Amino acid sequence: MRNFPFQHLTLITIIILVAIHPCLAQVHNEAAALEVEHVLRQQQEAWNRHDLGSFMAGYWNSAELTFFSGAKEQHGWQATLDRYRAAYASPGHEMGKLEFSDLRVETLGPGAAFVRGAWHLTMPDGNTPHGLFTLVLRKFPNGWKIVHDHTSAE
Amino acid sequence: MRNFPFQHLTLITIIILVAIHPCLAQVHNEAAALEVEHVLRQQQEAWNRHDLGSFMAGYWNSAELTFFSGAKEQHGWQATLDRYRAAYASPGHEMGKLEFSDLRVETLGPGAAFVRGAWHLTMPDGNTPHGLFTLVLRKFPNGWKIVHDHTSAE
Repeated sequence: MRNFPFQHLTLITIIILVAIHPCLAQVHNEAAALEVEHVLRQQQEAWNRHDLGSFMAGYWNSAELTFFSGAKEQHGWQATLDRYRAAYASPGHEMGKLEFSDLRVETLGPGAAFVRGAWHLTMPDGNTPHGLFTLVLRKFPNGWKIVHDHTSAE
Repeated sequence: MRNFPFQHLTLITIIILVAIHPCLAQVHNEAAALEVEHVLRQQQEAWNRHDLGSFMAGYWNSAELTFFSGAKEQHGWQATLDRYRAAYASPGHEMGKLEFSDLRVETLGPGAAFVRGAWHLTMPDGNTPHGLFTLVLRKFPNGWKIVHDHTSAE
């Protein structure tokens, strides 16, 4: 019986750890979801300052980034930036005012998450292009970055 | 020194485990990717038999399933089936021949993966609607199921 107190303590510790483990995972997931949402809010603010450089900081700066729109696929960060420039920041084009809504962040593992959401642009001419998006993000040493963006419009 | 051989063995075991751990993870990811691809191949075959019920078995049978297409969102397995029925299996509509291509499966955690790919339909009237899709899948006791589908067309 000499070891009883120690075993007793060990057992109690194990029971406490098992009991709080799902809570810790839940807290971790909620923290990750807030971090991911923050990336998107920063993107929205950057867009509305017409600061495409800062907007692009939300994307993984890699040739492996993918961007799907309609039936078109862009490969890589540079191609994604070029597409945004051509569509919104070249002569005769405007960035307008961007609003993300109905954001649903779901974590998929310790360093991965996906987001479902809606986008809505209000253009200076009164047009309001809008649609849905699906984003997949991974956590890198420099924070959460979008590794894949699928955007569609009406 | 009495414990030396045991410690020695423990150390060797740890070194071997550390060395093969990334290989095991890689093998596990590749197995998961093959399982996910199999789900999609089964869906393609079911579609081409015009068996919408078996096609729908690839989706999570839940009210939480989401299906994005253009700017429209369907909530739940039943709404997703209803949309497919209305567009492809109701009077005046055809299912045609479906082909998935350029499938890229990426695992995101022990029980999550996403797929980038292209879809192409050949309709009896010669039309060939086509586009891209992003799928998020989770592994359930009854296998990998699509929990979110974002599909877009030209």
